[in-house]
Amino acid sequence: MDQVRVGMIGYKFMGKAHSHAYRDLPMFFPETPRPVMKAICGRNEAGVNQAAKQFGWEEAVTDWRELVRRDDIDLVDINAPSDAHKEIAIEAAKAGKHLFCEKPLALTLADAREMLEAAEAAGVKHMIGFNYRFAPAVRLAKKLIDEGRLGRIYHFRAVFLQDWILDPDFPLVWRLDKNVAGSGSHGDLGAHLIDMAHYLIGEMTDVVGMSETFIKERPMPSSMTGLSARGSKDAPKGPVTVDDATLFLARFRNGALGSFEATRFAAGHRCTNGFEINGSLGSVQFDFERMNELQVYFTDDAADVQGFRRVLATDPAHAYAEAWWPPGHTIGYEHTFIHETVELMEALRDDREPMPNFRDGVRCQAVLEAVERSVEQKRWVQISEM
Amino acid sequence: MDQVRVGMIGYKFMGKAHSHAYRDLPMFFPETPRPVMKAICGRNEAGVNQAAKQFGWEEAVTDWRELVRRDDIDLVDINAPSDAHKEIAIEAAKAGKHLFCEKPLALTLADAREMLEAAEAAGVKHMIGFNYRFAPAVRLAKKLIDEGRLGRIYHFRAVFLQDWILDPDFPLVWRLDKNVAGSGSHGDLGAHLIDMAHYLIGEMTDVVGMSETFIKERPMPSSMTGLSARGSKDAPKGPVTVDDATLFLARFRNGALGSFEATRFAAGHRCTNGFEINGSLGSVQFDFERMNELQVYFTDDAADVQGFRRVLATDPAHAYAEAWWPPGHTIGYEHTFIHETVELMEALRDDREPMPNFRDGVRCQAVLEAVERSVEQKRWVQISEM
Amino acid sequence: MDQVRVGMIGYKFMGKAHSHAYRDLPMFFPETPRPVMKAICGRNEAGVNQAAKQFGWEEAVTDWRELVRRDDIDLVDINAPSDAHKEIAIEAAKAGKHLFCEKPLALTLADAREMLEAAEAAGVKHMIGFNYRFAPAVRLAKKLIDEGRLGRIYHFRAVFLQDWILDPDFPLVWRLDKNVAGSGSHGDLGAHLIDMAHYLIGEMTDVVGMSETFIKERPMPSSMTGLSARGSKDAPKGPVTVDDATLFLARFRNGALGSFEATRFAAGHRCTNGFEINGSLGSVQFDFERMNELQVYFTDDAADVQGFRRVLATDPAHAYAEAWWPPGHTIGYEHTFIHETVELMEALRDDREPMPNFRDGVRCQAVLEAVERSVEQKRWVQISEM
Amino acid sequence: MDQVRVGMIGYKFMGKAHSHAYRDLPMFFPETPRPVMKAICGRNEAGVNQAAKQFGWEEAVTDWRELVRRDDIDLVDINAPSDAHKEIAIEAAKAGKHLFCEKPLALTLADAREMLEAAEAAGVKHMIGFNYRFAPAVRLAKKLIDEGRLGRIYHFRAVFLQDWILDPDFPLVWRLDKNVAGSGSHGDLGAHLIDMAHYLIGEMTDVVGMSETFIKERPMPSSMTGLSARGSKDAPKGPVTVDDATLFLARFRNGALGSFEATRFAAGHRCTNGFEINGSLGSVQFDFERMNELQVYFTDDAADVQGFRRVLATDPAHAYAEAWWPPGHTIGYEHTFIHETVELMEALRDDREPMPNFRDGVRCQAVLEAVERSVEQKRWVQISEM
Repeated sequence: MDQVRVGMIGYKFMGKAHSHAYRDLPMFFPETPRPVMKAICGRNEAGVNQAAKQFGWEEAVTDWRELVRRDDIDLVDINAPSDAHKEIAIEAAKAGKHLFCEKPLALTLADAREMLEAAEAAGVKHMIGFNYRFAPAVRLAKKLIDEGRLGRIYHFRAVFLQDWILDPDFPLVWRLDKNVAGSGSHGDLGAHLIDMAHYLIGEMTDVVGMSETFIKERPMPSSMTGLSARGSKDAPKGPVTVDDATLFLARFRNGALGSFEATRFAAGHRCTNGFEINGSLGSVQFDFERMNELQVYFTDDAADVQGFRRVLATDPAHAYAEAWWPPGHTIGYEHTFIHETVELMEALRDDREPMPNFRDGVRCQAVLEAVERSVEQKRWVQISEM
Repeated sequence: MDQVRVGMIGYKFMGKAHSHAYRDLPMFFPETPRPVMKAICGRNEAGVNQAAKQFGWEEAVTDWRELVRRDDIDLVDINAPSDAHKEIAIEAAKAGKHLFCEKPLALTLADAREMLEAAEAAGVKHMIGFNYRFAPAVRLAKKLIDEGRLGRIYHFRAVFLQDWILDPDFPLVWRLDKNVAGSGSHGDLGAHLIDMAHYLIGEMTDVVGMSETFIKERPMPSSMTGLSARGSKDAPKGPVTVDDATLFLARFRNGALGSFEATRFAAGHRCTNGFEINGSLGSVQFDFERMNELQVYFTDDAADVQGFRRVLATDPAHAYAEAWWPPGHTIGYEHTFIHETVELMEALRDDREPMPNFRDGVRCQAVLEAVERSVEQKRWVQISEM
Repeated sequence: MDQVRVGMIGYKFMGKAHSHAYRDLPMFFPETPRPVMKAICGRNEAGVNQAAKQFGWEEAVTDWRELVRRDDIDLVDINAPSDAHKEIAIEAAKAGKHLFCEKPLALTLADAREMLEAAEAAGVKHMIGFNYRFAPAVRLAKKLIDEGRLGRIYHFRAVFLQDWILDPDFPLVWRLDKNVAGSGSHGDLGAHLIDMAHYLIGEMTDVVGMSETFIKERPMPSSMTGLSARGSKDAPKGPVTVDDATLFLARFRNGALGSFEATRFAAGHRCTNGFEINGSLGSVQFDFERMNELQVYFTDDAADVQGFRRVLATDPAHAYAEAWWPPGHTIGYEHTFIHETVELMEALRDDREPMPNFRDGVRCQAVLEAVERSVEQKRWVQISEM
Repeated sequence: MDQVRVGMIGYKFMGKAHSHAYRDLPMFFPETPRPVMKAICGRNEAGVNQAAKQFGWEEAVTDWRELVRRDDIDLVDINAPSDAHKEIAIEAAKAGKHLFCEKPLALTLADAREMLEAAEAAGVKHMIGFNYRFAPAVRLAKKLIDEGRLGRIYHFRAVFLQDWILDPDFPLVWRLDKNVAGSGSHGDLGAHLIDMAHYLIGEMTDVVGMSETFIKERPMPSSMTGLSARGSKDAPKGPVTVDDATLFLARFRNGALGSFEATRFAAGHRCTNGFEINGSLGSVQFDFERMNELQVYFTDDAADVQGFRRVLATDPAHAYAEAWWPPGHTIGYEHTFIHETVELMEALRDDREPMPNFRDGVRCQAVLEAVERSVEQKRWVQISEM
C-alpha cells in the first residue's frame, strides 16, 4: 500500500489542519504512504466548494452518507461538528472504511463506546485526533518515561489555559452551547490534558472536580464561522450552558497524583497547554506555546550543575525532527497534524492499530464524564463506575 | 516608642533568620523602631550560648518561662519547635508581652484558637511569620489587586514544590514525624500557599483534597539539627507519619476557583513557591525562586503588544525597594524577614494590629484542617464546619 | 495576474524550503497570486527527478540555460550554490524573467552589483531571500520602530550563534571552502544580521571587525549533501579556508551603535539568530529559536509595572497571523519562506519592487566586504569606500 | 588573628554596602576573622555622624589622614569618590595599613600603578572591590572553566546594560563629569566586564572600541547624593563629558574572542550585567538580574537531552551557599560584598594576597585606557602598548 484515498467530512478549522497535513506529508515523509485527497464534504455547497479548491481536494460533495459508501475511499476523516461524529463514524465503519475522527469522539461516553464497538465489529482501523501527542517535545517526554529515565512517577500536573472568551461581551458561539459542544473548557481543553495523562502516565482510578461558568449570559452572535463570531454587545443575551473552567484532582493506577485545570478565563494565556511530570529520577515540563521545547531535569546530574535543561526538540535524536529542518529551526502547530497523519498512514500500511485510537477516545470520555458526575454530585467518582 | 526589646525562644533556622532581621533593620530602615536583642532562649545551654554570640544577642537563657516574665522584654519571638508554640504564647500573653510567632501557629486549630483568644484577652499585639507576604513582588501583586487593576478574580493556582526528601534513603527527620511537625508538606508548605491565598484573594468556602506518603518508611537518623540530618541508609527504618504531598481544590467566597499543591517530591524544584492569579483585567505570576520578579499581564495593553511583563520589583515604585539598592540590584530570602520585622515594629509603634497576625494563623489552620478532614473522609468540606 | 509560473534552479535545503512555500501559499493566502511550480532544475538528473516528484514540480530539467529562456516561465528562483548565482541571474534577467535569488546574492560585491544592474537594465523584478525578515515577531519590531514607538534608536546588537561544526572532527564540507561558499560564518550567518540591521535600523557608515578560524584543518568528507556530510575522523585533512567566527562593531547613519557576532562555535546554540534594539522610548528582543516571540519594553509603562513583555506574535494584530491558526498556535521556520513568497507574488501582481531585493543584497555584500577588509587591514573601514 | 580593625573612608552607596558586609559577616561566617568597625570617615560631619550611627561604626571622623595613621586600625577601606582613591591609598600604605579599595582603583593607569607600587613597597595586603566575582553563580562558572569542563574557550561576550540616564532631562550628576568619574559607562560598568573577563578567561592582547555620548548636554542638578539627584528640567544645561556607551572587541591571549558593551541607554535594563562563554565542551550564561542562576550547557550530554540547564547556585555544592539558607532560597546583591569581605578577612588571616587585588585593578585600568586610546585614535591598540 503506497497511498490512502481519503474522504473528509468537515471543512472548518480542523478540516483545514487535516487538509494541510495531507498535502504536506508526501513532501517531508516520502517513504510514508501518500494520502490522496479524494473528496471533501460539507452541508454548505458554496462553502465546501471553496474549501475544496483552496485546500486541494479533488472533489467537493454535500452528502456524507454517499461519500462514506464510495468505493474509491479508503479512509473517512470526520471533523464535522462533534454532535455529528457518531452517526458518521458508525455508517462509515459499516461501509468498511477506516476512521479518523477528531476529538471529542462523541458527546457522551455511551456514544463513544458505540462508535468503538462499531469500528471493532467492522474490523476497520480507527484513530482519534489527539494531535498534541505528536509534538516532538512530547514524544521526548514519552521516551524518557518509557526508558525509565524519570523513574517512578509521583506527579502529573497539567493546565490548559486560554483567554479568548474573557470579554463578557464576546458572543454566545456554538462552543458555549452544551447541545452542540457537549461541554465547555472541560471537553474542549481538558480532554487534551486527559489524553496526555493517559499517554504519558496511564489510567486514572478516581477523580474529584469543580466547574464554574463565570459569565452566565452572553450576547447572541449575528454570524459565526469556525472559532470566530461577529456580534454586537447590545444584542439580546442567551444563557451560557457550558463550563468556563473545570478543575479536577486524580489518582493514577500507578500511584501518581494528578492535577488538571482547563479554563478559558486565564488572561494572557492564548494557548498554554502545559504539563509537568515529577518522577523519582527526574522531571519534565512542557508548554505548547513553546512547543519545540521540553524542560528536562535529572537527579543524577553532577551536584554542582543540577537544573532544568531547555531541550530544543529539533535535533536528529528527536522524533520527526530529521524530516524537517536543521537543528534549531523550529516547527509549529500544524506539524502536529502532519505527524499524526504519518502515524495513521503507517498504521494502515502496517495493518496495525493507530495510536491514539477510539479506545483512547473512550477512556478520555470516561474521565470527562466521571469528572462531570463528580462536579454534579460533589464527590469523588471512580472511573470504574462509568 | 523608638525601640522594642525582644526576647526570642528558638535558635535554629528561623531563629537565625529572625536574628538577622533584627540586626539589619536599623541599618536599612532607620526611621523604624529599633529591635533590641535582649535575650535568646533554648534548651541546650551550649547551643544557645553559641547562637547568642554568633547572632548578636545580649544574653542567652534556657528557661523560657522566666524569659517571658522579664520586665525588660516587650516582645516575645517564638520560633521554637511547633509543638511548643502554644504554651509559650499563652504564658507570654499573660505576662503582657507582644507576640511574634512563627508559622504554624499551632499543631491544631483548637490550639491556634486558644492562642488567639489568649492574646486578645491580654490585649497584646500578635503577629505570625508568613514571611512570603513580604517579598516586594508579592506586595506588587497585592497592590494591583487592591487597586482593581486585575479586575474580578477568576483563578488562583498555587504550588509549593520541593525535592529535598526525594531520596528514599533520606533519614526520618523530625519534619516527617506527625507528633512534632503536625503535618508534612501540607502544614509546612501548603500553609504558606493558604496564607498567600487569604492575603491576595480572600476567604475560601469549600475544599476537597488528596494526600499521599510516597515513601512509607525511612532510615532513622543518627543526628539531626535544623533541617539537616545525618544517617546511614542501612539504619533501622521507622514509619513516615506525615504527607509527602497534598493537593486540594477550593472555592473562594468571591467566586474565584483555587488550586493548591504542596509536595516534597518534585525533582528539580528546590523551592518553587509559586502562584498565578487570573482576573478579568489581567494576570500575575510569581515564583519564589525568582522572588524579585512578578510577571504581569493586562488585557488593555495595545493589541499588538500584549504579553506578560517581567517586572523586576526593585524600582522606587515597589514596596521596600528604596531601602535597599538601586533598581536592578536584587534582594534575597532573608529580606522577607526584615520587611516582616519592619511591619511588626511599626505596628507596635502605631499601636495597631500587625499583619499578618494570629487571626491569619487561625484561618490558615482552619483550611489546613478542613483539607485534612476532606482527605480522611474523601469529601468536600466547608470551612464553616471547622 | 492571478498566477506566477516558476522555474527553480537548485533542489537541496533551500530548494525544499522554497518548494514548500509555493505549495502552501495558495491554501493559506488564497487572495495572493498562485505560484505554479513549472520546472525544477539541477545538474544531477536522478536527484532532480526525485526532488520534482517529492516537492510537486511539474517537470525536472537539467539545463538551466534552457529553463531561463522558456516562454512558460515568469519567475526564476535561484537557490543553486552561491558561486552559480551570478551567471544564472544575469541570463535570466536578459531573458526577461523576474528573479528570486537566495542569499548571498553573490560571492563578491562586484558580482552582486553586476547582478543588480542586469536586473535593472532588463526591467525585471528582483527579490533576495532574507527570509528572517518575514517572521511575524520581526515584522512587529519593524512596525514599532516605524511608528516611532521605540523612539530614537541608540543600540542594535545582534548575534547569530550556531554550534554544528564545534567538533574538530566534523568534516570539511563545502561551507568551509572559500571558493564555493565565499566566506564562513560571516557570509552565512552574519549576512542575515546585516540585512536585519538594514531592515530595522538603516545604513551603516563605518565598521571594524575581527575573524578567527579556530580549527584550521579538518578531515575531508567522503560524501556530502545539503548541510550534512559523512566522513571518518581518520580521513586525510584539508585546510579550512573560511572564518569560524566574525565579530564587528558598526556605526549607523542615524547615530545608533551596532554590535554583530556570527559564529559556529557557540556550544548549545543550534540557531540563535537574535537581536536587541534599544531606543529612547523602548526596546525589543528577538531570538529565532523562539521565533514566535518578541520581547517588548516601553519606558512609558506605569512606574510599578515596567518590564519586558513576552509578546506571542500570533494575534490578529500581528503580520500574517490571521492566515494561520488561532492566537497561541505557533508557526515555524518554513513559514518565513511562505511569507516571503507572499511578498514576492504580491509585488509581481502590483508591479512594484519586492522587499528585500537585489539592492538589499548589494548593500549587505558591501558591509560584508567592508568587514573583511577591516579584518585584513586591521582598521576601521567606511562603507562608502566599498 | 581573629579580628581585623577597620577604618573606612566614604559613607555613601559603597560605604553602606561595605558596612553591611562587615556587620553580617560574623553571623554567617563565624569561622572567619571578624571585622571590627572602628571608625568611618567623611568630609561632612553631620553626614558621617549619621552614617556611623546607622551603619554601626564605633566612631565617626572627618580627617582621613589622621585615620589612616591610627594604631588601632589594621585595614583601610577606601570607597570615597574615585578621584580621592590614590592619595588615601598611598598614605595608608605608608602607614602600614592593609588596603581595600573600591573600583576603579584610580582615574588613570599611571595612578593605579603608583598605588600598586606603594602597596607592594609597604608590604601591605591590597584588595579591590570587583564584587561581582563573588556571586556563587559566577564562582561556579570559574570552577567549570578551571576544571576544564568547558574545554578550550572560544568566545566571551559580555554586556553591562543600564537605563538610568535614558531620560534626556536627567540631571548632570557627578558620574557624568569626567573630572570626578574618570569615564562614564566604560569605567563604571565596562570595568566590571573587563575584570570578569580577566577572572574567567585571562589576559587580552588587543582591543578596538567605539564610544558615544548620545545626550551631549543635561540640566545642572540642584542637589546630589550618592546615585540620586534632584533637578529641574528647566535648569541651565552643562556638557556631559563622559561616554554614555562604549563597546569594544578584544582578542585574548588564549585565542578566545571577546565582545564587550557597556551602556546606560538600554531601555528596560536596570542592571543587566551579563556574560556568555562558549567553549569546546560547553557554555555558560550569567545575568546579574538573576544572579542566583547560571545557565550551563555541556556537549557531552546525551543526544536527546542537550540543552542549557538553569542551575540555581544555592546548593551545598556551590560556593558560599551553605553559609546561607536551604537550597532554593536565594541571596541578593549585598551578599557579593559579604563574600568579598570573607575573602579579604581570610587572606589577611592566612597572610596571602586577597583576590582580586590592586594588580587586577591595574590590569583592568590598562584595558580601559587601551580602549579609550583605540576610540580616540580609531585603531586597534595592543594592551602591551599601555
